[in-house]
This record gives sequence, structure tokens and C-alpha cells, in this order.
Amino acid sequence: MNNTYGTLFRITTFGESHGLSVGVVVDGCPAGLEITAAEIQQELDRRRPGQSNITTQRKEEDEIHILSGIYENKTTGTPIALMVNNKNQAGKDYSHLEHAFRPSHADYTYTTKYGLRDHRGGGRSSARETLARVAAGAIAAKYLKQHNIQIASYVSAVGHLELQESYEQLDLSQIDKNKIRCPQPEMAEQMIKLVEETRKNRDTVGGVITCVIKGVPVGLGEPAFDKLHAELGKAMLSINAVKGFEYGSGFAGTKMFGSQHNDEFYTAEDGQIRTRTNYSGGIQGGISNGEDIYFRVAFKPVATILQPQTSINDQGESIMLEGKGRHDPCVLPRAVPIVDAMAALVLIDFFLRQKAVR
Amino acid sequence: MNNTYGTLFRITTFGESHGLSVGVVVDGCPAGLEITAAEIQQELDRRRPGQSNITTQRKEEDEIHILSGIYENKTTGTPIALMVNNKNQAGKDYSHLEHAFRPSHADYTYTTKYGLRDHRGGGRSSARETLARVAAGAIAAKYLKQHNIQIASYVSAVGHLELQESYEQLDLSQIDKNKIRCPQPEMAEQMIKLVEETRKNRDTVGGVITCVIKGVPVGLGEPAFDKLHAELGKAMLSINAVKGFEYGSGFAGTKMFGSQHNDEFYTAEDGQIRTRTNYSGGIQGGISNGEDIYFRVAFKPVATILQPQTSINDQGESIMLEGKGRHDPCVLPRAVPIVDAMAALVLIDFFLRQKAVR
Amino acid sequence: MNNTYGTLFRITTFGESHGLSVGVVVDGCPAGLEITAAEIQQELDRRRPGQSNITTQRKEEDEIHILSGIYENKTTGTPIALMVNNKNQAGKDYSHLEHAFRPSHADYTYTTKYGLRDHRGGGRSSARETLARVAAGAIAAKYLKQHNIQIASYVSAVGHLELQESYEQLDLSQIDKNKIRCPQPEMAEQMIKLVEETRKNRDTVGGVITCVIKGVPVGLGEPAFDKLHAELGKAMLSINAVKGFEYGSGFAGTKMFGSQHNDEFYTAEDGQIRTRTNYSGGIQGGISNGEDIYFRVAFKPVATILQPQTSINDQGESIMLEGKGRHDPCVLPRAVPIVDAMAALVLIDFFLRQKAVR
Amino acid sequence: MNNTYGTLFRITTFGESHGLSVGVVVDGCPAGLEITAAEIQQELDRRRPGQSNITTQRKEEDEIHILSGIYENKTTGTPIALMVNNKNQAGKDYSHLEHAFRPSHADYTYTTKYGLRDHRGGGRSSARETLARVAAGAIAAKYLKQHNIQIASYVSAVGHLELQESYEQLDLSQIDKNKIRCPQPEMAEQMIKLVEETRKNRDTVGGVITCVIKGVPVGLGEPAFDKLHAELGKAMLSINAVKGFEYGSGFAGTKMFGSQHNDEFYTAEDGQIRTRTNYSGGIQGGISNGEDIYFRVAFKPVATILQPQTSINDQGESIMLEGKGRHDPCVLPRAVPIVDAMAALVLIDFFLRQKAVR
Repeated sequence: MNNTYGTLFRITTFGESHGLSVGVVVDGCPAGLEITAAEIQQELDRRRPGQSNITTQRKEEDEIHILSGIYENKTTGTPIALMVNNKNQAGKDYSHLEHAFRPSHADYTYTTKYGLRDHRGGGRSSARETLARVAAGAIAAKYLKQHNIQIASYVSAVGHLELQESYEQLDLSQIDKNKIRCPQPEMAEQMIKLVEETRKNRDTVGGVITCVIKGVPVGLGEPAFDKLHAELGKAMLSINAVKGFEYGSGFAGTKMFGSQHNDEFYTAEDGQIRTRTNYSGGIQGGISNGEDIYFRVAFKPVATILQPQTSINDQGESIMLEGKGRHDPCVLPRAVPIVDAMAALVLIDFFLRQKAVR
Repeated sequence: MNNTYGTLFRITTFGESHGLSVGVVVDGCPAGLEITAAEIQQELDRRRPGQSNITTQRKEEDEIHILSGIYENKTTGTPIALMVNNKNQAGKDYSHLEHAFRPSHADYTYTTKYGLRDHRGGGRSSARETLARVAAGAIAAKYLKQHNIQIASYVSAVGHLELQESYEQLDLSQIDKNKIRCPQPEMAEQMIKLVEETRKNRDTVGGVITCVIKGVPVGLGEPAFDKLHAELGKAMLSINAVKGFEYGSGFAGTKMFGSQHNDEFYTAEDGQIRTRTNYSGGIQGGISNGEDIYFRVAFKPVATILQPQTSINDQGESIMLEGKGRHDPCVLPRAVPIVDAMAALVLIDFFLRQKAVR
Repeated sequence: MNNTYGTLFRITTFGESHGLSVGVVVDGCPAGLEITAAEIQQELDRRRPGQSNITTQRKEEDEIHILSGIYENKTTGTPIALMVNNKNQAGKDYSHLEHAFRPSHADYTYTTKYGLRDHRGGGRSSARETLARVAAGAIAAKYLKQHNIQIASYVSAVGHLELQESYEQLDLSQIDKNKIRCPQPEMAEQMIKLVEETRKNRDTVGGVITCVIKGVPVGLGEPAFDKLHAELGKAMLSINAVKGFEYGSGFAGTKMFGSQHNDEFYTAEDGQIRTRTNYSGGIQGGISNGEDIYFRVAFKPVATILQPQTSINDQGESIMLEGKGRHDPCVLPRAVPIVDAMAALVLIDFFLRQKAVR
Repeated sequence: MNNTYGTLFRITTFGESHGLSVGVVVDGCPAGLEITAAEIQQELDRRRPGQSNITTQRKEEDEIHILSGIYENKTTGTPIALMVNNKNQAGKDYSHLEHAFRPSHADYTYTTKYGLRDHRGGGRSSARETLARVAAGAIAAKYLKQHNIQIASYVSAVGHLELQESYEQLDLSQIDKNKIRCPQPEMAEQMIKLVEETRKNRDTVGGVITCVIKGVPVGLGEPAFDKLHAELGKAMLSINAVKGFEYGSGFAGTKMFGSQHNDEFYTAEDGQIRTRTNYSGGIQGGISNGEDIYFRVAFKPVATILQPQTSINDQGESIMLEGKGRHDPCVLPRAVPIVDAMAALVLIDFFLRQKAVR
């Protein structure tokens, strides 16, 4: 499996940070879906480096190329290959990292696992791989939107700054209105300030992304191992720098009593079965219950800092790493479209799996 | 996939709470592993209902039967079928639940997803399914032990009671010395008291299980989607009542700066490459780095409470549910062997996957 | 995968010839399908040993037990576990085979692959495993029948005796009217005579089974690797003793010119698109075209003969094997329901896969 | 799965005949394998159109591009993306085929399955997809060669011309010495003559490819569904135009008695366990036994003939198709490297699967 994800709607990603290109093959997309390169590009642009002064200043255009599977702006049911060529890398000198094991990076584990590694810019372990997910996710999201399923993610914490409002108290249409992608303007401003300070300190900072999914029909998700939230959890944890996942009441729910935590059912005026509270996070027994699905994803501070650090090389010898280059002081704003994409990929897969048996 | 888990070491579980039996087929176990029914039974006994006054008082023997795949106490390389017959269910009257949708249970989602359901004792959605995982996990753990990999889980929080010590400050050999399975005796006592009170209040309470895995060689886990922690996360989130997962620094790590969070590499006196801190939780870039792996799993309070609750039936009509029966006021102590089992199943699978390519 | 088959409708089989039981877990069956144990038993009875004087005279009842997944004679959408207990084996002495490598059996390959084997009655390599497939196939066939897809297999050759009529010239309702399962009465009689003679000669004989599938809608099968006929081929070749598979014009078609072989399209009076000939065997580009699907499956003569044979033991030493026991002189009649079952398993899987995307 | 093949060594292909490019992602290849673009190109050249006067005269260079996964001519363990850009297609007019259903092509089935299709040059159903397999197979074959496993395929029949010699009587080093790829020079000459005549008649002709695999260690292949020959069968049947597969004694073996067909074991002078005959085709119980593996693959005559044919369009109306363009009168010589490639892909996958558990 390794680089393939999904059961019926499957993506296979490829590409190293500094190889010729990064791409994805999307297999199992229903035929006849209208989708343009511009729609995919739009999501890639949300992830693009250099989009603001609080992300890395590397200039990468990340222009999408559709190689197959889409004909006259419609999916044909055959595999959709999407590719972004890597630019602007030539001439860069990475030789100082060829033998270094950077702290909290994958240099050591890759080298030991494979016996060798492409060290340029992190190679395969670079978060550049996630652009392939974003491109594939754009197609999934388009399909879901046509089936009334809407996904929205936003930054809900940066470092110690935590948004107090629940997603229901926020105007999610405001997410892209500021460069940190937090829909609450005052908090956004504080977060931006914190990231700017962090960058000035040549440091990095972590945070949390909250994702909300509305319009999911009752019945998605599979009992036992492929519970809807279990797959969402895996998908999120597979994103670079993610350290935790919780849905519904999450870790806070562990402190509650059952009598507080249970979501009471009732029949709404329109005849819909609803719950009065939603500690379940829209999922019961691993299956969507029609309420909003929401979850939180924890991101650690990125490992690349612009400070000197002690480490070792592949001979086990002590070395000093200088911090240099153009890097993200905080991945959160650029990770928002990645969370969106992974959520879309999980949802479409369960949507199709459910269609198969009903 | 649904009821199958794993890539090379695969388990397929079956059985409803009140059907004839619950079981599992284990496929892909290396041949020649010595394993007895008693060794599997031992783990099942840790999960068994009625083991103490703070678990459900249902008496179930849960006796394991080996149907295939083990010959003269050795695995033969062919599928290992394990089965536990359900007892003590006959004559029970579940007709009052036939049409009820219990709050925060899977009654509503199952009925809507499948168009019908086996309502007796929760049917397939019952946590009884997890005994199949525990049985399979016992085989995996035996194999791992022979390869020097040790897994230990314990209860680290019940309700608001949180163990302050890190796993390194605890004596993990004490886990099974008390009925709550917390290795710190004073805290264990407090937790037990809290569960007993909760039971008296006819309520339930949640908590957290911490799992520690030692002896994992460098190199397990796969880049991109099948990162070691992503699969551990999925495995844990697939356990009934789990609401969250975090590994290493987890959600707390989001509040740190990179300069604090990075784990410095050094070469130990024995020549081993080590890190001075372990915020990475033993996993970097999705691949084990040889340090201890540790993670936390959040369990909600169980939904079945012995109090009257308002709900609806499958006609959408309002009903009153009486709380009755024998249920767990807190699943944590019985969930410890389930966390152990799922961790073992994840580890053995990655262990075999890595063997294939090295 | 090993002992699991299928993508959405998945079966996992377990059990050795002389273990406690042989069984199967069927996962992914749509909920609400009406099915009784008797319907499954009926197919098992077609495969049962001792059903006539031209099959093995071992008496095995092969009584099906439904352990899970079916409630009040309806599938619930949860895994269906089916099991047959092995009887009549106790006290049998297989010690003379413990170290023997029987010619053209799997004794040598299993022992080398796994380092040990359960030698009793062939263990896992015994064709007894196929009863699990037949049981699962009965469920699949029931579902397909409700969607108008009908499968019929029959013996079209035994040794040198080859049925000259095409399937269209035969009355397929006659298949079960004689003990060889050939729908042409005179040929059936000759075949039976040949098998009886072969048995008297303490020998075995091979043959061919032809399978016809009617009512398949246009569009089943997937381009590239999972072509409908490729999966049918794999399914058939996975049956014990099968040596070859051909569909449509098959090997004979290789001798034709394109101008002869092409199937001309026309629009029938009812508006249906049809082909005038059907060398394509109902499949074009790996996808069903609505015409009858037909294929032929080659079975070798069974390896167990009642004659003395020279072989070696697991020390590489020369030994003499005496032929004894009760065995099939010809597996063909009992293999007919196995071919039916595997065809049903392939068809239902593609049927569900197609439902997912349309 | 659809466009992905393999369990541990997995390939995912993409691309339509007349899209921008055709390619493949190879996932799971062990790291450290030395492989150059030239080695892959060499196999692609064996498949290339226009290589002789008995193949299509289309000029396509089919130049391989390595996009990822290979660094300094070594595999890195990350996904290997290979791509060939489609050339020389611009300006071609395929509008006459936009609505036509060509006889024995996939036009009708694709259109019905997907609701639309990319009709240019057959789109995804074109055999052009197989170049992706050949590229991936070259990598697999390189790995296998280093483990002493050698694969050789050759044309053993064209139309009614059938090579009488068994593979053991042939000099397999002569396969590429003539343009039909039959290692027996006189037969090769006759075959070439037959193809040339067929082409003059504006017709096409089928044939058979025989494949021989030497050096396979005992123990590859999995019992039950993933028998070695079952997977080989699926792999071969997934190649365009294939109608049948048989291994070892194949269909001819059905006419034999067990006493003739059984392969007697003996211990060779070097201590190796061998069989005196090899009707088993090197596979017993689905597992390799160390003898040569051999099988035959039936190819129908290609459907595109240069003669006028009656057919219908997508409105069901009768149309007349003119035969034109540059096409293969016989695919056999160009299919030889495809059979080689698919055999290599099957073998490496089982090789790695076996490594995982031993």
C-alpha cells in the first residue's frame, strides 16, 4: 500500500521534493464529473509556498498538469494522473545535508530503513508530497459538493493561542479572508503576530486545525476497523507534522460522565432524526448519523529552525547544523487545504463504498 | 475491507454479541510460532466481563477454541481460526430494545445504514467484537516478544483523575496488580473509588489509556499514508468508545516552539544513535527511530447508563428508556488488553512488511 | 491476502481437511438478502463426497452452521461466518504420510514453504477447503439471481470424451439429472462409464467444465488489471487441480483471422445492442457486453491414485507409496458447484463495484 | 484496485492512447537496486511500434522518463514514477470513430460503462497502456535476475502454425534473433511469411506465446486464492487480446490418467529434490516446486482490420466502417515483452511476500 490510499477512490502519490516532479494518480473517480485544471489549481494555490509573509518565501508556482483521465473537462472513469513539475531547484546546494541527520526530521529513519536516501530538500519525506493530496482532494471535494457534502477547515490554535469559540459560533466563510486562515478576525490577528514574532526569533510554532463536515448522509463508515472516524484519524495522522487527532468531545470527553455525554435523540419538526447535543461528533458506532462531523488535528512546530543545532551525521559523529534557507515558521495556514483534501478523500471513499451496497 | 485489518498479518473478525459465537481468522502469521490456547486465553481473561467489582457483572467465560492453523501447538502458516461461543444469553429478553434508538449507541446508524439490525445486546456494534482482536493480538504479541518488542498499556486517567507521572517514572510490571490497571498504587486506589462511586450513581465515566512499546527496531512504518503512528491511530480509533489519539508530544506539543520540541541526536556509548528527548514518540517521518513509542488513547464514558433517558424509537416517536442490566461503569480496565492487542497487530504487520524489502 | 478473495464482496476461508472445522467469513454482502441454511446446504450437497458411486465413498455430511451475520433469515450487513465441522476423521491413521511427499501433491511445497505441515488428509491443501467457497458462493448466487444473473456449469469433457455441442445446443436444466453433471444424456452415460472403468483401474482421469453466465448487464469488469475475464480466470485457476482457463473463442480463436473472429454489432428488434457471433465470450475490453459469458476450465486427473508409486520422504530418501483409501476417480462432477460458486463470487464483486460508481 | 496491480510490489498505470502521456507508478520496490533508464528503454524498444515490417508502421519513440524514486541510478524505496509522452498524434483525425462502435473493440462497453469515452485511438482501452507494464516489468526483472530468476517468452504459434518442439528443445537465446520472436528459425520464417500474407490480405491473425521461468526457489505462491499459477493466469489474461491461459500440462493434461500425469519425485545427485517429469509446470498446490515454470497464453487476432465492416454507432444505427490506418497484422511479436513483464511482476510480488514470513 505505502503510497496508495483509499479503497474505491484511490490515490497513489509519487515524487521527491527535488526530483523532476510530484504527482498523483487518482483511480476510481466516477465518470462524468466536470472538473477543470483551474479548479484543482485553486486548491493548490491555497497550499502554495510564498503566499504570504508568514509562510516560507520560496517561490514555487506549482502549476498543475492533467496527464490523463479527464477529457473535455470531464472525468472519463479512467485513472487521472496529475503532475506538478519542480522548478527553481537547480543549482541549489544541498551537499551540506547529504550526510547530516537533522533533529526531528526523517533523515535518520529513512537512511536506516532504506540504506540510502535522496537528501535534497528532504526527498520523499518533504511535505511537498502533500500537494499531490491537495490536487486529488480537489476532485473529491467537487464530487462531494455535488452531493451536498461541504468541508471546511480552519486554524483554531497557534502555540498557546486557542480560539475559544466552537465552530458553530464562527462564520466559516471567513476562513480565507486572512493569511493565517482563522475565521475569527481578532484571534487571526493575534495568531499572525505570534507567527511573525516566531519567525523573527528564527523559530517555529505548532497549532491545531479544526475541520467541520456538513451534509454527510446517515450511514457512511464501516463497523469494526474502518470506522469513519478511524479512517479520518489515519488520514490526518498521515499528514506531515501531525501528532494527534480527536473528534467530537475528544480528550475533553474523557472527563465527562455518561449522563452528561450522551446525545439525546429527538425528531425535528421536519421529521429528521436529530440529537440535541453532538458530543458524538456526527459519528456513532463508526457510522455518520447526519449531524455535523467535526474533529481537531494537532500539528507540532516544524523541525526546520533557523538556529544552529547540535546533531550527528551518518557516521554517528557530532556535527553542528546551521539554520538557513526559506522555511515556514508555522505550517498551519498552508496545512488547512491539506486537511480539507484528506477529509474529502476519506468521505468520497466511504460514500462510494456505501453506494455499492445500497 | 470492513471487517478485515492488516496488510500481511491480517485479521478478519465476525460475530454478534448474542449470536452463536464471536471469532477471528488470522491470516499471514509466520509458520512455526509456538502458541497454546492457554496463552491466548490469558489475554482474553484480562478482557473478560465480571473480572472485578468495577466491571460489568455479567458472567462470561469466553473460552477460546482453536479451529485451524495451529497444529501441535505451532502455527502452520495457514489461516488460524479462533472462536468463542456466546453463552448465558438464552432466555434474555431484548424485545424492549428492538425498536429503540439508545442515545450515543449505534442503533440508529446501523438501522439506517443496513435497513435492519440484530438488536440483541448491540449485535455487531457491541464491544464484544473486541474479544476477537484480543485473541488475535495474543498471537501477534507472542511473535513480537520473540523479536524483542514489548508492549504495555495502562490506565493513565479516569474522569478528572490524571496520572502525573510519565511512563518512564512508573513500574510497568505493576499494571495488572490492581483492578483498574494503573501502575501507580495511590492513583489506582483513587481511580477505583471514582469508578465505584460512578457505578453507585448509576452513571459511567471515561478516561485515557497510555501505551508504551519498547524494543522496536529502527525502520518500521511506511512513508506517506501508512505512517507508523497513522496506522496506530486508526487501530486505536477503531476500538469502541475511543474519541482521540495522540503520540509523543501530542496536543501539548502544539504549544511548543521548534527549538524546544526538536529531539537532539547523539551517539550513545554503545554506539547506538539516540535522541536526548523523545517528543517524537519514537517515530520520525512515520518510521520508528528506535526510541520508545508511546501514545495516549481517549475513551468516552460508555453510553449505557442505568438511568432513565428520553429517546426515540425507529418510528421517530419519543420513548423513555429505563436503565437496567449489568454494564461497565468504566471500560478502561477491560480496554487495556484491547489497546495492547491492536498495538501488537499494527506492529507485527509493519515488522513483516519491512522484512519483505530488506 | 492469501486466504481472502474479493474487493467488496470478500470471503476469507479457513480450515484443514482434518482439523476441527472448515469455514468462511463472508464480508460485504448487502443487508436484507433473504437466505436460509437450507439454500446453502443445497449447494454443499452438490459438492458432498459420497453422493454417487463415481465420487469418493467417504461419508461426510458437511452440515452448514451459520455463526453470524444472518438474523431471522436475512443478511444484516455484518460478516457472515459459516462453518462445517469435520467428522468421521477420528482414529484415522495418517502416520504413514507424515513424512511422505506424494507425487503431484502439495506435500513437498508446503513443507518447504512453511518448514512444517499438518499432513493429515492433505491439511490445508486438501480440496476440502473448497466447501467454504461453495457455501459463500450460494449466498452470492442468491443475490445475483435476484438481479437476473444466472450461472450454470457442466462437465463438457472427461478424458478423451468431449461434448461436441456448444452450450447453446444443450438443455442446461438437465445438468443435475445425472451423476456426472453433463446435460447431454448419451455423452453423460459414456463419461460415467469411463469414470467407472478408471476407478476399476485404480486410476484417475481429468476433464473440462464449461460455465455459462446469462443476464449479466453491460458494464461489469474493470479495465487494465481487473478485467472481468482475468478475474474469472484467477478464480477458476485457484480451484484445486485446475490447469487452464479459456473464455469465448479461447485457444481455438488463436487460429482464426480477424475478419472471421470479429463479432458484428447490430441493433435487435427490441432495441438491444447485440453481436451476431460471440467469439468475445460476452466480454470486450475486459467489460461485459451483455452477451452470454462462457468459459472452459481444465482439470487434471487427481493425483491420488490407488496404485503403488515411487516417491521420496522428507529426508529425500526413496519410498514406496501404496495407494489406499477412498478417493475420487474424477473430480469433475463434484467440481461443478465449485466452478458455479467461484463464478458467482467474481460476478457479485464486480456488480457491487459497478454500483459504487454509477 | 482497477488500475493497480500487486500486493507488495505494486504498479499503478495511467494514460490514454492519445492523451499527453502514459505512465506507471511502481511502489514497493526494494531500495538499492541499480537500474538505469537505458535498461528500461531496452524493454520498451522490444515492444515499440514500427520495429519491423510485420508490426504496425506507426513511428513512436516511446522514450522513458524517470520522474521519481530513482536517485543516482539506484532505487530509493520511494515510488518510482515512469512516463512516456505521446507523440505524433497531433492533427490525427479520429472524428469518424467518435460515435462508432468498432466490432470486438471496447467502444461499446466503455461507453455504456462510463457514459462517455475518450475515443481517440481507443483511449484507455488501447494496448498502449501495456508500455507502462513493460517499463515496470523491466525493474522487476532486474531484481529477479539478481536473485537468479530468469524469464523468457517466445511466440510458439501463429494462426495454424504451431511450434512442435517443447521449450526444452529450443535455444531460448535466439528469441530476439528474428522479428517474430520464435526461437526456431525455420518456423520463424514460416510465421513471418504468414503474417506478411495476412497483412497483404488486410487481415489479422492470432497466436500463442509460451513463457518459461527458470530459477524460481521452492515456496513462492500462496495457498487458496493466490496460487502462483492463478495470479500468473490473471496477469496474462489482463493483457489486451488474451483469450486463454494454461500451465504445465494444461488442457492436454485433462485427457491423461493420473498414473500418467503424476510427476515422480527423486533426489538428484546434488541432493536437490526433483521431479522426473514436469506436468505440474513447476507449481504444486499453488506453490513453486523448483522445477521450471512454463505456461501458454492465447492471443486472438487483433480486432482492427483494414477491411470494410458493418457495425453500429452509439445511436444504434447501422454504419459502415472503412479499415484504414497503420495497425499490427499480428500482435504476437510485440506482446512477447509484455508477457515477460507481467510474469516478472507476479514473481517479484510473491518473492517479496515470501521474504516477509521466512
